[in-house]
Amino acid sequence: MIGKYKIRTDLAMENGEKYEKDDVELSGVVIRKDYNREKDVHTTYVQIQTEHGAKMMEKPIGTYVTIEAPNLTAPDEEYHREISGELASHLRALLPDKEESAVLVIGLGNREITADALGPQVVEHLQVTRHIITEYGAAALGEERARKISALVPGVTAKTGMETMEIVRGVVRETNPDAVVVIDALAARSIRRLNCTIQLTDTGISPGSGVGNYRNALNQETLHVPVIGIGVPTVVDAGTIIHDAVAELLESLEESEMDEFLQELISPSLQSMYVTTKEIDETVKRLSTTISDGLNQAFLYNG
Amino acid sequence: MIGKYKIRTDLAMENGEKYEKDDVELSGVVIRKDYNREKDVHTTYVQIQTEHGAKMMEKPIGTYVTIEAPNLTAPDEEYHREISGELASHLRALLPDKEESAVLVIGLGNREITADALGPQVVEHLQVTRHIITEYGAAALGEERARKISALVPGVTAKTGMETMEIVRGVVRETNPDAVVVIDALAARSIRRLNCTIQLTDTGISPGSGVGNYRNALNQETLHVPVIGIGVPTVVDAGTIIHDAVAELLESLEESEMDEFLQELISPSLQSMYVTTKEIDETVKRLSTTISDGLNQAFLYNG
Amino acid sequence: MIGKYKIRTDLAMENGEKYEKDDVELSGVVIRKDYNREKDVHTTYVQIQTEHGAKMMEKPIGTYVTIEAPNLTAPDEEYHREISGELASHLRALLPDKEESAVLVIGLGNREITADALGPQVVEHLQVTRHIITEYGAAALGEERARKISALVPGVTAKTGMETMEIVRGVVRETNPDAVVVIDALAARSIRRLNCTIQLTDTGISPGSGVGNYRNALNQETLHVPVIGIGVPTVVDAGTIIHDAVAELLESLEESEMDEFLQELISPSLQSMYVTTKEIDETVKRLSTTISDGLNQAFLYNG
Amino acid sequence: MIGKYKIRTDLAMENGEKYEKDDVELSGVVIRKDYNREKDVHTTYVQIQTEHGAKMMEKPIGTYVTIEAPNLTAPDEEYHREISGELASHLRALLPDKEESAVLVIGLGNREITADALGPQVVEHLQVTRHIITEYGAAALGEERARKISALVPGVTAKTGMETMEIVRGVVRETNPDAVVVIDALAARSIRRLNCTIQLTDTGISPGSGVGNYRNALNQETLHVPVIGIGVPTVVDAGTIIHDAVAELLESLEESEMDEFLQELISPSLQSMYVTTKEIDETVKRLSTTISDGLNQAFLYNG
Repeated sequence: MIGKYKIRTDLAMENGEKYEKDDVELSGVVIRKDYNREKDVHTTYVQIQTEHGAKMMEKPIGTYVTIEAPNLTAPDEEYHREISGELASHLRALLPDKEESAVLVIGLGNREITADALGPQVVEHLQVTRHIITEYGAAALGEERARKISALVPGVTAKTGMETMEIVRGVVRETNPDAVVVIDALAARSIRRLNCTIQLTDTGISPGSGVGNYRNALNQETLHVPVIGIGVPTVVDAGTIIHDAVAELLESLEESEMDEFLQELISPSLQSMYVTTKEIDETVKRLSTTISDGLNQAFLYNG
Repeated sequence: MIGKYKIRTDLAMENGEKYEKDDVELSGVVIRKDYNREKDVHTTYVQIQTEHGAKMMEKPIGTYVTIEAPNLTAPDEEYHREISGELASHLRALLPDKEESAVLVIGLGNREITADALGPQVVEHLQVTRHIITEYGAAALGEERARKISALVPGVTAKTGMETMEIVRGVVRETNPDAVVVIDALAARSIRRLNCTIQLTDTGISPGSGVGNYRNALNQETLHVPVIGIGVPTVVDAGTIIHDAVAELLESLEESEMDEFLQELISPSLQSMYVTTKEIDETVKRLSTTISDGLNQAFLYNG
Repeated sequence: MIGKYKIRTDLAMENGEKYEKDDVELSGVVIRKDYNREKDVHTTYVQIQTEHGAKMMEKPIGTYVTIEAPNLTAPDEEYHREISGELASHLRALLPDKEESAVLVIGLGNREITADALGPQVVEHLQVTRHIITEYGAAALGEERARKISALVPGVTAKTGMETMEIVRGVVRETNPDAVVVIDALAARSIRRLNCTIQLTDTGISPGSGVGNYRNALNQETLHVPVIGIGVPTVVDAGTIIHDAVAELLESLEESEMDEFLQELISPSLQSMYVTTKEIDETVKRLSTTISDGLNQAFLYNG
Repeated sequence: MIGKYKIRTDLAMENGEKYEKDDVELSGVVIRKDYNREKDVHTTYVQIQTEHGAKMMEKPIGTYVTIEAPNLTAPDEEYHREISGELASHLRALLPDKEESAVLVIGLGNREITADALGPQVVEHLQVTRHIITEYGAAALGEERARKISALVPGVTAKTGMETMEIVRGVVRETNPDAVVVIDALAARSIRRLNCTIQLTDTGISPGSGVGNYRNALNQETLHVPVIGIGVPTVVDAGTIIHDAVAELLESLEESEMDEFLQELISPSLQSMYVTTKEIDETVKRLSTTISDGLNQAFLYNG
């Protein structure tokens, strides 16, 4: 990494990349990459296995799967269906391998602010089944076996007065799901990944995260059931963009001057700005359909 | 009551009216009426005191306050503010008389369907304070004492797969409020009361009620804290309207023929239709502001 | 017709029905009916040929095609597609038979009030092509020949300060379409036809019509090009419902008493109320897709 | 200006600034600045008087007033009201000085994409009067004299198939206003000006402008009545941000290297990205109210 500016990214694979570039060996972290040429999909598997690895990667111990599908930003229904399928198969692998399991899906974020509305929009399109199965049995769905799916949009703390954690834990205790799936909008470091990357992880999610706020993380430790986090980066930190662009160019300059440059470059006013595309509203709408389709498929037994 | 057609109303006072008309004495029920000529506001206090009264009134034992304010359907800000004040004072009387109490407000209904969106819209405008007081103390709000207000829009069962009851009970257990206030859209019998009547009750609310569905009622029995229900009728059953219109006219006819007439008149296709005004969208928006202003006032100590 | 209460309907075929019932012969009006058992679709063709017929039918001289498809209220995609096809073939028959014609589609109504939002929502889903063909030719659309489709949502007079007529006439003069298609929400007399009936007519449409307001009608006379009106009834007058229900029952009573009864029955307060279903929001969304799909098909040459 | 990267800004004053910095004299351009300390409002008056000035400034000959009010991004009602007043007084100065004049307000942009929805949202809150005055006279508004205000949201070409110009010209010819006011979202060069700057100009607006597209400009030349453009920058080009940040820092480097650096720095992928704040939705909502309040005031005679 050039300079000391703190790059914020929610994608584990991006934290891996900075070490790659500097050719630093990462003990306690296993990274594997796949490429499907036909679909033009890169899949990265990051496994953080030790506390040392977690510290280096700035992410908790666990598994992170990242699907990069550049064409996701285009309104191509066929392609979206394929990515839904990809997502479904990764998700099924992370879900508890139990007969007739119950899954609670949580849509994090603020439905009024587009770049933050991914979670609520995914839940909007989700096929919930728990109430039907509870009342009439799986047969009512025309299936022999079916997962009991329930869903909740808890809302943001500024509007509920409660920590997301409190709401979710209350509902988990009351309804006893076998697993929780949490959907959230993420921040990426690279513009290339904006709106076309899906990360799945078995480490859950920290709402409005940032460093150190572990008290309110939604994960197995706090909810006592497996928690799968699914997210799509919908914003890129503007400071990040400048950092990257400049860093690349300045590589020929003296190392010593560089740090100073970059420290000055990322002015505070820039750090609260976000870069996004003008099509963000439509993009988020499309993405949320893709994800909820993926969830719907994953939740079928014969999907 | 003329005829045997089952009139559905969520307003206790309307169930009282039918006995009044027939001049039947209602033991176990005390009804008191006030009229404020200046504001043109009728207030009706219904107290159901015995099981016999509850059966006659088809409503649980408890207190029901109904504010009828015909001008509520007009966009008169001054008037809305006055009714917010009325609502606040009735609500304060029903809230637990405890220092620094915590209140959880629940917005029932479906935010996508206007006539059912009252609850979610009220919560939208509510000032929640619990997270601020918890973090920084009441002083952060510029008050010596302040109620801890939190709020939740649980969503409808068809979209969550869970009973509203389960979600609310989970959150109540986790966050321990001293009282719960539930907001919902109601059905009235009389067109005159549409969108201009507010009912408060200490008996809570039965979501998607109808007779007999007591399992999922939100009340003190199920939530173990006081539960105050607040509602506004936004729909009138179309069958009801016809029934009333015809009943009035046919009073001169032979009693014996009438019942038959009316039974035939209320055809099944009519019973699923609802009568509403074309301005329902704007009306619900205005009403929800009035109610949330009332709540906000009630929740202040020096309101 | 029983009684003198003025029934308001925008469907020509409903005005025809009242004469049918009374077995009155309608000179100057030709009515033909088709039934497609497989699709359960009734199609009625009304041709008003003389001024006398126009007076009897309370509608201008011209052709009215009504498609009644009860299943339209269900979210059955396959069925909606079939009705889109029906609509397309009727519309093609009414469009000018000219090579490469240009069509301007007007979406009347208020997008904020669901029951009135049909026009704006149809335009939302319409594939406009005029700007592409003008710039790059039909080849850019992958077609040899293509209609130049343009579309406008003029908004309601209360929000624009202009008559819809003025806006549309200005745009027609400026862009010279060969035909105008106007979409609007209608009022029906029968609850059975709510949200499941589509009327096409070559007589255009009178926005916010009612009797006598001919100055602002959108038709060939005022716009100097053929004007096709397409509408779906989304509201039923509440007075109408009562009238119908009572009229049926009272048929056994003395004719003389009846008129009086009915006059009294339809109280003024009822006349401003509208009957609709609770699902109106979703229903209008679905219907608008069906119609715009139909338009899109009709506008293709090889549809 | 450092480097040759083409900075895009819709604010005339920002084009002025680059010459200021380089201390180049601008013949044919008069720039005057005011500062109101109490309100913390900077007002800049740019008058482009000659063709040479127009070429230097990359803007047509005419007057440009820019109000910079940093606090506009905060939800302070009182302050918004003051800025509405400022806007109103500048607008009144640009409106034709004619008794009972008629003004047509055009809201440009796409109401579905927040950063582009300023125009439609302003029109949403506008008090239109033309239809009332035409029908009943100014007395109906409780005024002796009143402007006839009408308004139109033409929609974007991709949805209408027509050039905005065609629609507006048609409606202008049909309704004969004395002036047209066009509202649009703009792009700024400086992040500081995002969402807190209002530009008024008597040169109209070029929808989806960019260089050279003069055919579709909305101005006096094309509409034959005075056209006033009002805009707020809601986006900043991401390339611009990087350019500015780097340029500042590199000032100590050799001039010759710099150009090359900067050319490379602004990669094509960056140029289609936009920087915005996460609060853009709420910000646009607030801003549109401020502007429409300003218009409403300006249109009163005794405002």
